[in-house]
Amino acid sequence: MAPKNSNIRLSFPAVCFVWQIAMIILFGVFVRYNPESDAHWPEYRRMKNFTDLENDFYFRYPSFQDVHVMIFVGFGFLMTFLKRYSFGAVGFNFLIAAFGIQWALLMQGWFHSLDYNDGKIKIGVENLINADFCVAGCLIAYGAVLGKVSPVQLLVLTLFGVTLFAVEEFIIISVLHAKDAGGSMVIHAFGGYYGLSISWVLYRPNLGKSKHMNGSVYHSDVFAMIGTLFLWMFWPSFNSAICNHGDGQHRAAINTYLSLASTVLTTYAISSLWEKTGKLDMVHIQNSTLAGGVAVGTAAEFMLMPYGSLIVGFFCGLISTLGYIYFTPFLEKHLKIQDTCGIHNLHALPGALGGVVGAITAAAASTTVYGEEGFRGIFDFNRVAPVQGGYQAAALCVAIVFGIGGGIFVGCILKLPIWGDVADENCFDDEFYWEVRVELIYI
Amino acid sequence: MAPKNSNIRLSFPAVCFVWQIAMIILFGVFVRYNPESDAHWPEYRRMKNFTDLENDFYFRYPSFQDVHVMIFVGFGFLMTFLKRYSFGAVGFNFLIAAFGIQWALLMQGWFHSLDYNDGKIKIGVENLINADFCVAGCLIAYGAVLGKVSPVQLLVLTLFGVTLFAVEEFIIISVLHAKDAGGSMVIHAFGGYYGLSISWVLYRPNLGKSKHMNGSVYHSDVFAMIGTLFLWMFWPSFNSAICNHGDGQHRAAINTYLSLASTVLTTYAISSLWEKTGKLDMVHIQNSTLAGGVAVGTAAEFMLMPYGSLIVGFFCGLISTLGYIYFTPFLEKHLKIQDTCGIHNLHALPGALGGVVGAITAAAASTTVYGEEGFRGIFDFNRVAPVQGGYQAAALCVAIVFGIGGGIFVGCILKLPIWGDVADENCFDDEFYWEVRVELIYI
Amino acid sequence: MAPKNSNIRLSFPAVCFVWQIAMIILFGVFVRYNPESDAHWPEYRRMKNFTDLENDFYFRYPSFQDVHVMIFVGFGFLMTFLKRYSFGAVGFNFLIAAFGIQWALLMQGWFHSLDYNDGKIKIGVENLINADFCVAGCLIAYGAVLGKVSPVQLLVLTLFGVTLFAVEEFIIISVLHAKDAGGSMVIHAFGGYYGLSISWVLYRPNLGKSKHMNGSVYHSDVFAMIGTLFLWMFWPSFNSAICNHGDGQHRAAINTYLSLASTVLTTYAISSLWEKTGKLDMVHIQNSTLAGGVAVGTAAEFMLMPYGSLIVGFFCGLISTLGYIYFTPFLEKHLKIQDTCGIHNLHALPGALGGVVGAITAAAASTTVYGEEGFRGIFDFNRVAPVQGGYQAAALCVAIVFGIGGGIFVGCILKLPIWGDVADENCFDDEFYWEVRVELIYI
Repeated sequence: MAPKNSNIRLSFPAVCFVWQIAMIILFGVFVRYNPESDAHWPEYRRMKNFTDLENDFYFRYPSFQDVHVMIFVGFGFLMTFLKRYSFGAVGFNFLIAAFGIQWALLMQGWFHSLDYNDGKIKIGVENLINADFCVAGCLIAYGAVLGKVSPVQLLVLTLFGVTLFAVEEFIIISVLHAKDAGGSMVIHAFGGYYGLSISWVLYRPNLGKSKHMNGSVYHSDVFAMIGTLFLWMFWPSFNSAICNHGDGQHRAAINTYLSLASTVLTTYAISSLWEKTGKLDMVHIQNSTLAGGVAVGTAAEFMLMPYGSLIVGFFCGLISTLGYIYFTPFLEKHLKIQDTCGIHNLHALPGALGGVVGAITAAAASTTVYGEEGFRGIFDFNRVAPVQGGYQAAALCVAIVFGIGGGIFVGCILKLPIWGDVADENCFDDEFYWEVRVELIYI
Repeated sequence: MAPKNSNIRLSFPAVCFVWQIAMIILFGVFVRYNPESDAHWPEYRRMKNFTDLENDFYFRYPSFQDVHVMIFVGFGFLMTFLKRYSFGAVGFNFLIAAFGIQWALLMQGWFHSLDYNDGKIKIGVENLINADFCVAGCLIAYGAVLGKVSPVQLLVLTLFGVTLFAVEEFIIISVLHAKDAGGSMVIHAFGGYYGLSISWVLYRPNLGKSKHMNGSVYHSDVFAMIGTLFLWMFWPSFNSAICNHGDGQHRAAINTYLSLASTVLTTYAISSLWEKTGKLDMVHIQNSTLAGGVAVGTAAEFMLMPYGSLIVGFFCGLISTLGYIYFTPFLEKHLKIQDTCGIHNLHALPGALGGVVGAITAAAASTTVYGEEGFRGIFDFNRVAPVQGGYQAAALCVAIVFGIGGGIFVGCILKLPIWGDVADENCFDDEFYWEVRVELIYI
Repeated sequence: MAPKNSNIRLSFPAVCFVWQIAMIILFGVFVRYNPESDAHWPEYRRMKNFTDLENDFYFRYPSFQDVHVMIFVGFGFLMTFLKRYSFGAVGFNFLIAAFGIQWALLMQGWFHSLDYNDGKIKIGVENLINADFCVAGCLIAYGAVLGKVSPVQLLVLTLFGVTLFAVEEFIIISVLHAKDAGGSMVIHAFGGYYGLSISWVLYRPNLGKSKHMNGSVYHSDVFAMIGTLFLWMFWPSFNSAICNHGDGQHRAAINTYLSLASTVLTTYAISSLWEKTGKLDMVHIQNSTLAGGVAVGTAAEFMLMPYGSLIVGFFCGLISTLGYIYFTPFLEKHLKIQDTCGIHNLHALPGALGGVVGAITAAAASTTVYGEEGFRGIFDFNRVAPVQGGYQAAALCVAIVFGIGGGIFVGCILKLPIWGDVADENCFDDEFYWEVRVELIYI
């Protein structure tokens, strides 16, 4: 086999330019402002008898900005933990997200925001949030292949990932009429299994040669905590961002806040129990503390009750940390899945759990607990509760099938020897895609 | 004396599990959604003739998220300045806060949000803010003992700290009817004296043996600036978060913004004056620049006037910086109080000053300045201004007494030789509670 | 020539104290709360038939906080990239901003918020945002002289910068009635040329002696990404913060979001194309990715259309990155302008481009696209579109003239040998203004 060539000087700029120009053309043909962001708003507003404040912007913009921080700083810095791949972590995360949100606005727009009068996609702040959600799926997948793929591969992963996401989301939300406010299924289970499947196809048998680079140093672990904390703090905004106005957003924020708090304690407990002298492991603290936010996503808007949220978080911290301890090594050894960031334990599994929690709580919903009007407002499709629970479970299957199927398909494409990825001994090293300046030992 | 044993493999996970399970049970028995976060909101809303926007969520959620960032990133990163205790700083801060907010929701709920019809605590976004406020007191106390205690001790400190806080807050707010929007007294004076008293009881005579670890390196000081800046920037949200809707929140944000700006200039000036060649000291910049936010807390909602806020900030920067220069060494040498982060100068003293400022401005309040309705809105209890000023002063005394008394009590508990704290020569070192990986010199 | 003396022990504290006391006196004489932040709000509200929610605080406070983060963390951390000037970057940024916002409240207040009944400036949240905007101009200028000036010089630069800004802004906004929502002209073009002109006057022929300090290390580049990302993420809030309520803010956020996304792709593409093996350069990623936010500023509120925003971003990423590659060396070599952070490529040029984009789109505006009422709402002065376009172009000239003229004037003042700046061989080194502790090699 010829030695790997990581020179991407032609392919990478070419892909960036072609795709960005394609975006401009497609936006030119398809995308316009919706009535709330269009200059005709004053007339529209009068017609609808709205005040300026009832513009959706004021309901959702603060949450949007929090979600935006999670996507760019949260995911980006969470992956800076490797001693010498921080540029790639935060820099490629930035690239994926900036490209992905454009393609997501189009894909999701065709499915959900198309105005059939003029064939245009009409966008507003909710579309921006959904686009951020959509790239989250791809960023999760990036976590599984961190340090092992080229930026060109990442752009391909994103193009297909966003496409698959939009289709899967359409089936789950608009065909099955399942609820998934915080995207446990649509985002996390899908993104997790998508990334794991790609990593499985791209299995590198000699990755051990890069072992010395596959770890953290002291300050890179501190950088990663920036990512962890911004994800953790803003997760209530993530899960509530596109909920119903009023109690929906309010309750989703509370549920998520509680679930996350509970997760922290079990994560710390298990992390300490595992180590001989009770020390804590930064890998667990950086990742498993977030699992409660993932798992409470589907049910965030439901009447999960405060103690229900605590219970979800309790088990998620426990399971996720045990996943890092037992399951990640198992995956690598026996299933040939190399999962750099352990997304299985942070996204795939908690996402699936979240789908199950959602199905159960939906099946148990009643108008006694929700009130007539509240019930109709949340489960907007006209079904009895147990049937809704069944559809929720079906939705989870769709997410997983799309993740695994799509991941295998995209993995095969990414296996072609044309994408400029590095050799097994050069993984987890910024040297190959970034100008890293010569440094004095000057701390 | 037997050598210290810092192995917490049994005690720490046990405490985490027991307390988290207790939280779940207590939440199950006591905690429910309030009418604004409950699914019955559509009916409640119609009854009250509200629009969705008048859900308290939209008044307070953006401030809540800012406060949340202050608690987890602000306090966490502010304490990362030590060269080798950044994991402990940001990691134990995370743990304390995640546990504390749950216990605070219960404690504060029993005092303030109990629905006497069904005996349940009904929570909404304001409860979340108040829980964040409550743990702030414990995080302040953590600053005094940073690097010297075990995580088990920190959990005990938090359990008692939150309890004491809730009682003290109840007395100040609901018995004395004092005002303390930004918590100068309730949070900062209490938390500061609580931490200092604990540190006094836990005095380590041979702490000098860890002197080489009790300092910063270049990058740890930069990390700490992340904490400083997020605290500084979001302090207007902290002081305005639970103020009255409308002008109350608006004015509190302005007052805090101005006070903090003024503090920065005097801090820089004093820091430079003190050093022989006019150089600046990062310790002062990281900490004293925040003192103005603390001191303007009680009076934030009052008609302090923009110049009044500047004056408060002016003196706080000055006093706080001088505190770092003269008072911290004095405390250690003569009062046997080892205050790692100098919380005396950042929280205890400015908090007490803030109480005094609040008492004076309350005593001087008049309906000419506030308007009839404004006066009644802010000083909601029916008193003439000078009497209110007296009660404000009494409130400050309560906060300090609870801080000192509670701190001595809890300090005695923490002195028991069962908590797994490290020996004097092993302080300020992550090595003992964290897996710190072997590192190449790879900067 | 006598050797440079960087001792600022007398001058620096003296300036800080005198100016802060001056601020207190001027605020005492001139500044009061506006009706929305004054305790008389309940009466005012009833008179105007407003609800509490219609207090401008709720329209603008979340955006204000985002802008605040950009000023203090965004600008501050963006400049931490130098290996040994991170304290100066984040610390002097803090100082400039904290002083500048106070002076800006006064200067802008006299021009825009003076109540002619009582001669007082009445402030509210919009004034806070505008003050933040105003200091942004000075922080941009700081980027050009980073590492080469003393803190005293920076305070002088700020005093004059804010003054010039306020006059220029008054001419552009209130005399020419030009629109500049995101400040492409008022903030970025002005600030950019102001800084470049100062740097030109302060030209250091022997700066090469500090060459070894004028570069990054691995972790300082990661710190700088914190600045980049917070600027990038919150730029939609920056450009929409003072737009019209409703569709204005909504559309500005969307336009900025899209322009920035597009910029990222062309920046990455050009950065990779330039380097022999297609590697990426952190300097470009940290800076040029932001150019799209600058350039879309003036037109952010206009009906630029989503594809229009993408096009603006496309060309800005391209031009800005090429600027770093070709123009910065050219400026230094041939025009004797030493531009540490490359503000020419990030602010001056994209700002000027933004002014041009604004002029063209204003000239092309029509009531068909905007609606009668929308048109009047945005172009509030009664003009036909092409005339408005002309005035927009005139505004750009004003900004540039003020920037260059003011910069030369202030540069001459700063050239006086009394300000305590360091010698050419001591630039880019925190050693001279900060206590930098002796460090063990302990990473």
